[in-house]
Amino acid sequence: MPRIRLAIDASGGDYAPDEIIAGAILGARQHPIELTLVGQSEQIEASLSRHAVDGLAIDIVDAPETIELDEDPTLAVRQKKDASIVVCCELVHEDHAEAVISMGQAGAGLAAALFTWGRLPGVDRPGLIVPYLGFRDTYLIDAGANTEVQPQNILQFAIMGSLYVERVIGITNPLIGLLSNGSAPNTGNAIGQQAYALLQASDLNFIGNVEGFALPQGLANVIVTDGFTGNIALKLGEGLVTGLLKQIEETDPANEQLATLVNQLQAQHDYANLGAAPVLGIDGLIFVGHRRSKAPAVAGAIGNAIRAVEGGLLNAIRDALKAA
Amino acid sequence: MPRIRLAIDASGGDYAPDEIIAGAILGARQHPIELTLVGQSEQIEASLSRHAVDGLAIDIVDAPETIELDEDPTLAVRQKKDASIVVCCELVHEDHAEAVISMGQAGAGLAAALFTWGRLPGVDRPGLIVPYLGFRDTYLIDAGANTEVQPQNILQFAIMGSLYVERVIGITNPLIGLLSNGSAPNTGNAIGQQAYALLQASDLNFIGNVEGFALPQGLANVIVTDGFTGNIALKLGEGLVTGLLKQIEETDPANEQLATLVNQLQAQHDYANLGAAPVLGIDGLIFVGHRRSKAPAVAGAIGNAIRAVEGGLLNAIRDALKAA
Repeated sequence: MPRIRLAIDASGGDYAPDEIIAGAILGARQHPIELTLVGQSEQIEASLSRHAVDGLAIDIVDAPETIELDEDPTLAVRQKKDASIVVCCELVHEDHAEAVISMGQAGAGLAAALFTWGRLPGVDRPGLIVPYLGFRDTYLIDAGANTEVQPQNILQFAIMGSLYVERVIGITNPLIGLLSNGSAPNTGNAIGQQAYALLQASDLNFIGNVEGFALPQGLANVIVTDGFTGNIALKLGEGLVTGLLKQIEETDPANEQLATLVNQLQAQHDYANLGAAPVLGIDGLIFVGHRRSKAPAVAGAIGNAIRAVEGGLLNAIRDALKAA
Repeated sequence: MPRIRLAIDASGGDYAPDEIIAGAILGARQHPIELTLVGQSEQIEASLSRHAVDGLAIDIVDAPETIELDEDPTLAVRQKKDASIVVCCELVHEDHAEAVISMGQAGAGLAAALFTWGRLPGVDRPGLIVPYLGFRDTYLIDAGANTEVQPQNILQFAIMGSLYVERVIGITNPLIGLLSNGSAPNTGNAIGQQAYALLQASDLNFIGNVEGFALPQGLANVIVTDGFTGNIALKLGEGLVTGLLKQIEETDPANEQLATLVNQLQAQHDYANLGAAPVLGIDGLIFVGHRRSKAPAVAGAIGNAIRAVEGGLLNAIRDALKAA
């Protein structure tokens, strides 16, 4: 079996290029892969020179431009042909790599992938799937890619999410829940109620509507919703963890044991440590991570990307959508 | 000034009638009010006999029926004319009381109030306003009364919520935020974007779109959204607090100091301790609390009800909606 080849956006993220490159090397030591580091080549070389990379298959491709956080992603991707994220997607498109990993602007990653690869047949709304904080094996899709959806999109999120957690995370026959304002089948808004009927009629392991507490309590493996609600649920969770841990620390600021516990839990629930999340429904594999990601998150994303390639995730999704 | 008269649903809630009555007595000792306890009169008398009530103005009105948690609220309210919550609303309707407090089924409270009093002129969607857990002075409206809303409903939630936190909670010129999937004005779904324009054109102290973390971080005093999103945000918050505190406790189960801290925080964020929430937009004042509420929450609800009556909340809302 030929080695899996990954394109790493070395210019994306708050700690690029050093932490990205350190993470890439970590990943390359753990797995038999070929890496292409894409970004400002002089910077990459300088950063690489500080590591022992003997025996690792690491390439560099120069991409002098970067897309800033405040740029409109679609515009930027069309204008900056030499942006690292665009070049990464081109490498996959030209069959020099099987997947892209980026800790840069998530919107730009999504736009570059869509622009370069297009959607899978039958998909008009790709969805972002993320673990719900660091609680349990619960994943949320769509975590924010689509503000408005149709029932069919929610069904597709569920199909794609189910395959992702099965093939990449390793959860057999995952439980699928539809996020709603009640657990009864007739709760939810009009789109949700129609999505419920589609999910019920599907081959998925659908457990019905789940309420907000299902996310932290892990009552399903994949919780599906529109990207508006998903984005709010995601950011609410992040803010609440931070807020509650701060409250805990402030009860006894001099207590070092308590401070250590708070720091551990903060780290456990921090998206900067939770790897990178794929956008599902695009005709290619891209994993976008938090911009504060450091080396271990990059290495974690490499692991996920490898499992997605080895598990044939893209073809499995293509086939499942065709059959649905 | 005549004393404020409150109708208390003595049969509603998991700890009815004893905790409801204990809370009512606590409230009557703190404030110069007249209370009518509504429920099964023999039970109420038996419970009252265990307290010293000399000098307190407490009346009993017999209402032999109760609405159970699993009953359809609208049907139950129409069929059970002698249900305690229905009789409470009747008392206000017949000018024997100024407000109702109930820890019974929230849906039944809303249905009874709507059925007996009707909506305020111009309101087609009354909204439930709740404090967002026990963090700061941040209130969420609509916390779950309406699954589908129009932009105009969101504007009305904001107008009513602003008056509530100003007159009852005592926050001057409250900051109003619209819950969205980004902070920029052009984020949000179609309904939200239209609501943004209405809020922007209003006299409210509108700070624009706020993201999910604004709820626990207290970035606005009133955060408005539809009842679908609001319900999910509410239950997600409750579940996350419980989940995170459980994780903390499990790191060191034998640590009594940690267990005490966890219990304190759990209590601080528990809706059973957070008083009762009004449904705004109905032509009358009703405060519905968590069914696990005990005496201190009932007394807290009495304080809120008094401030709502004294502050002329209902007329203020009526006038503001007319002017909007």
